[in-house]
Amino acid sequence: MWIYQKQLQYPVNIQRGDVGMAKFLFAQYGGPDSELSASQQYLAQRFTMPTPETKALLNDIGTEEMAHWEILGAMIYQLTKNATPDEMKAAGLGDYYATRGKGVFQQSPSGEPWTSAYIQVLNDPIANLSNDMAAEQKARAAYERLMSLTNDASIIAPLAFLRAREVVHFQRFGEALMDIQNVCVKNYAKG
Amino acid sequence: MWIYQKQLQYPVNIQRGDVGMAKFLFAQYGGPDSELSASQQYLAQRFTMPTPETKALLNDIGTEEMAHWEILGAMIYQLTKNATPDEMKAAGLGDYYATRGKGVFQQSPSGEPWTSAYIQVLNDPIANLSNDMAAEQKARAAYERLMSLTNDASIIAPLAFLRAREVVHFQRFGEALMDIQNVCVKNYAKG
Amino acid sequence: MWIYQKQLQYPVNIQRGDVGMAKFLFAQYGGPDSELSASQQYLAQRFTMPTPETKALLNDIGTEEMAHWEILGAMIYQLTKNATPDEMKAAGLGDYYATRGKGVFQQSPSGEPWTSAYIQVLNDPIANLSNDMAAEQKARAAYERLMSLTNDASIIAPLAFLRAREVVHFQRFGEALMDIQNVCVKNYAKG
Amino acid sequence: MWIYQKQLQYPVNIQRGDVGMAKFLFAQYGGPDSELSASQQYLAQRFTMPTPETKALLNDIGTEEMAHWEILGAMIYQLTKNATPDEMKAAGLGDYYATRGKGVFQQSPSGEPWTSAYIQVLNDPIANLSNDMAAEQKARAAYERLMSLTNDASIIAPLAFLRAREVVHFQRFGEALMDIQNVCVKNYAKG
Amino acid sequence: MWIYQKQLQYPVNIQRGDVGMAKFLFAQYGGPDSELSASQQYLAQRFTMPTPETKALLNDIGTEEMAHWEILGAMIYQLTKNATPDEMKAAGLGDYYATRGKGVFQQSPSGEPWTSAYIQVLNDPIANLSNDMAAEQKARAAYERLMSLTNDASIIAPLAFLRAREVVHFQRFGEALMDIQNVCVKNYAKG
Amino acid sequence: MWIYQKQLQYPVNIQRGDVGMAKFLFAQYGGPDSELSASQQYLAQRFTMPTPETKALLNDIGTEEMAHWEILGAMIYQLTKNATPDEMKAAGLGDYYATRGKGVFQQSPSGEPWTSAYIQVLNDPIANLSNDMAAEQKARAAYERLMSLTNDASIIAPLAFLRAREVVHFQRFGEALMDIQNVCVKNYAKG
Repeated sequence: MWIYQKQLQYPVNIQRGDVGMAKFLFAQYGGPDSELSASQQYLAQRFTMPTPETKALLNDIGTEEMAHWEILGAMIYQLTKNATPDEMKAAGLGDYYATRGKGVFQQSPSGEPWTSAYIQVLNDPIANLSNDMAAEQKARAAYERLMSLTNDASIIAPLAFLRAREVVHFQRFGEALMDIQNVCVKNYAKG
Repeated sequence: MWIYQKQLQYPVNIQRGDVGMAKFLFAQYGGPDSELSASQQYLAQRFTMPTPETKALLNDIGTEEMAHWEILGAMIYQLTKNATPDEMKAAGLGDYYATRGKGVFQQSPSGEPWTSAYIQVLNDPIANLSNDMAAEQKARAAYERLMSLTNDASIIAPLAFLRAREVVHFQRFGEALMDIQNVCVKNYAKG
Repeated sequence: MWIYQKQLQYPVNIQRGDVGMAKFLFAQYGGPDSELSASQQYLAQRFTMPTPETKALLNDIGTEEMAHWEILGAMIYQLTKNATPDEMKAAGLGDYYATRGKGVFQQSPSGEPWTSAYIQVLNDPIANLSNDMAAEQKARAAYERLMSLTNDASIIAPLAFLRAREVVHFQRFGEALMDIQNVCVKNYAKG
Repeated sequence: MWIYQKQLQYPVNIQRGDVGMAKFLFAQYGGPDSELSASQQYLAQRFTMPTPETKALLNDIGTEEMAHWEILGAMIYQLTKNATPDEMKAAGLGDYYATRGKGVFQQSPSGEPWTSAYIQVLNDPIANLSNDMAAEQKARAAYERLMSLTNDASIIAPLAFLRAREVVHFQRFGEALMDIQNVCVKNYAKG
Repeated sequence: MWIYQKQLQYPVNIQRGDVGMAKFLFAQYGGPDSELSASQQYLAQRFTMPTPETKALLNDIGTEEMAHWEILGAMIYQLTKNATPDEMKAAGLGDYYATRGKGVFQQSPSGEPWTSAYIQVLNDPIANLSNDMAAEQKARAAYERLMSLTNDASIIAPLAFLRAREVVHFQRFGEALMDIQNVCVKNYAKG
Repeated sequence: MWIYQKQLQYPVNIQRGDVGMAKFLFAQYGGPDSELSASQQYLAQRFTMPTPETKALLNDIGTEEMAHWEILGAMIYQLTKNATPDEMKAAGLGDYYATRGKGVFQQSPSGEPWTSAYIQVLNDPIANLSNDMAAEQKARAAYERLMSLTNDASIIAPLAFLRAREVVHFQRFGEALMDIQNVCVKNYAKG
């Protein structure tokens, strides 16, 4: 179970509304390679991981990705909270406003609801961890794209933090994959 | 952000494998009225709720629903962990096994990936809270159906706990709705 | 079965083309909280409702929501019928035109096909009616958003009519829920 | 707008419960080639059809397909209404019962929610009518499959009626296509 | 099996970048009536076609549609390859860039992932071929719409080629349908 | 463009019908980790790969995965072609038969249409190749699961061949990833 701690993992203090940029941030809030995808993939995979270490690793990172998801949600909220309907419309979010108002819904920038079809949860630890490494690379690339779409330092700072965390996760998944492969080899040697 | 506490909100000690029942439990793990739907709906709605009390309420209940989701995942895992491929096949989970092995994937019993199309996140607090009350009624009904599908006390006990929690949540959302409506009326009176 | 009566429930006489506004109206034609969602939810729920009164109520309102859906379709058609491809493109409907031409397809403003994942149909009358009340609140909020996106009186008038009808439906579902709860209590008292 | 007439287009008097067959009937209630697909396709296409005759044809047939959809719903309801949870489970509808109880939800037999991705609505009358002819052939084939899955005369009779109607609709769409092509040729000749 | 031949079926030499037009071309690359839909429908239907001629026809045309799909992909690539993030944003592809970068993903212009719900694959040859004829009409209409959205001759030329091929395919499917109906009649006459 | 060669990449000579096993094979024909997913992911990624070698690699493997997809389709066809409706029903494919007859449709064993949401296509070569390596591991695991679900040598032989090919592809993608990383390092060194 989880205890909520009333604090964001990284502070979000958006300096000025930017509805258009809010839209792009949905990519990492509810898109295919989003923090939601990552947290759901890791937290579900952990049930069947074969060692306590890999269970704990997926649990830790999955829980952190939830905090990342919350950061994105807070950014979208701050970027849009003062926008009028006309401003939403002018910035290309008229469709969004018509459908969801200013709710912070789990979707991609172009409006597709999040689906677990984006992720995979198996009980093959090698396939799972390979898929997790790929997830981190896709998220890393996503943050690089998002940073290229704005010059606002108050937006870039949390994105840079999140990007850096994905690189760390990638490395930790890589180490776990080597450990698991060693376990497999040893079990095989034992017969 | 969230801190993981290494404990289930309600203990799960399944006495014997029951692959068929595991399949039904996916309804509340990844189906339309599942704990995943509830937690995602509440945690996303909270960003735009107009009062600190309703933000906190959605945050608390959303976080608790994550713990419920974890209970369901633990049940499915315990019910299937010792099953052979032939047992999976015999119990009608051959399809599942072929596609996901014994991973605990976010889907409905009949295999549809979870989608945020099941939920709605607006910035209209009355529509949000009405929808949350409906979500709790749908979940309550789901637990009643699931309990009617088994006689195993070690399965029924956590389901009964979860059902009771949904009733409490329904009541709390009802109170919040009245509070919000009062706020609206007062604001209206003030002009 | 249904008999078609060659008349809209509320007249639609759009004064000038407005392709952008047509796009937003898709929210209530084929979006998550649309008239299509409402009519499909009520007409399917009615099969298992436990009393003749609630069956009739769902049938009446479901049939009326079909008429509302037709009003939205007529509005979209009138708003776009004279638009050239270039005008569609200029108003942000180039995507739509490329994919569907000027057909009036059941989708949300941002292009997601309508899915019954938006609705729920159970045989628990309390869960069904709670969900129906939520549906009406979501539709009410949607019409308020749509009215804030235009100043055209010939668009606002039918939207205001539709909004008012949703409020009436909400009340009728509320009364039905109380009646059903009374029936349940009486049945319980009888043993 | 539509007026409900309290009568099925063809009477449904199921002689005995058959939960398994109910499941198969979902194919025509909420599957890809279902009556729901047909009615939604025709009623939405009609807005942009270029002649009063083709508008009226699509309206008539679309309205009749709604009545067919209702027949299927009534059949599913009668086939399942007395089934216990254990009987649902034994007949392979445990998944369905866990997720939707005995609600008559718009889905395919294997559980996919209905989606308008199954249909297409353009403003090209030749493409629309070709697609409608294909829809009728697919529905005709579906009824033939369903009839091969049961020996129960009280199920077969409405299915045979529905199959016959699809053949008539196919012919009417074929005539409309010829008429529209003649209109096109004449317009071309006129310059 | 297939052998790749390093050549497009029709040459693509886009003269200048046009990100907005690239977006519209997704309609035929990954939309409902796209070349992907056509190739997947025909290549899957062929397994159960009843005569060697119709198997071969579906195989030939399905393989050609793959080549068409590749032409569309090459066009999208050439139209976007030199665009900066700012140019993507200015042309209304900021959403796309945020989610997929400049990858050439199988989706519709408005972002819905391609789904096989768009197609149907039965073992009824008459329903299959009717559906294939409809697919060709829908594709023909799509190319006409796309050609109306640009004046660039280097874009129009391949689109005109593709449109012409769809008309040929339509005719070949029509002949195949007549042949199959004759086979059915003869089989019926034989008893 | 592709040339069809009238030969399967690996021969399929199913010895006896096995409708249940056919159902499981849909996992690799149209499921999330299927040959369809692999071929679509690789063939679309190739457009933006930065070196001729990686373009060619993705093209080669993507084309081979199409041949694998055809092998799966041929297996499903041979396993079901002589089955009666009653045999389909008895083997748990009544749902499938009701919806698609004996067509070989692109879906998962439990009936979800294939969606490109399963794959990702970016223009970041490192993210793409990491994702491709993960795809091969997931496919490898899938073939191992499928082989555990049957004892029929005529089914196991092609599955073992396909599994072996995925391992080879995994290695080739790993080499390509190292090459690309070297290119990146060199470009960085050059400034």
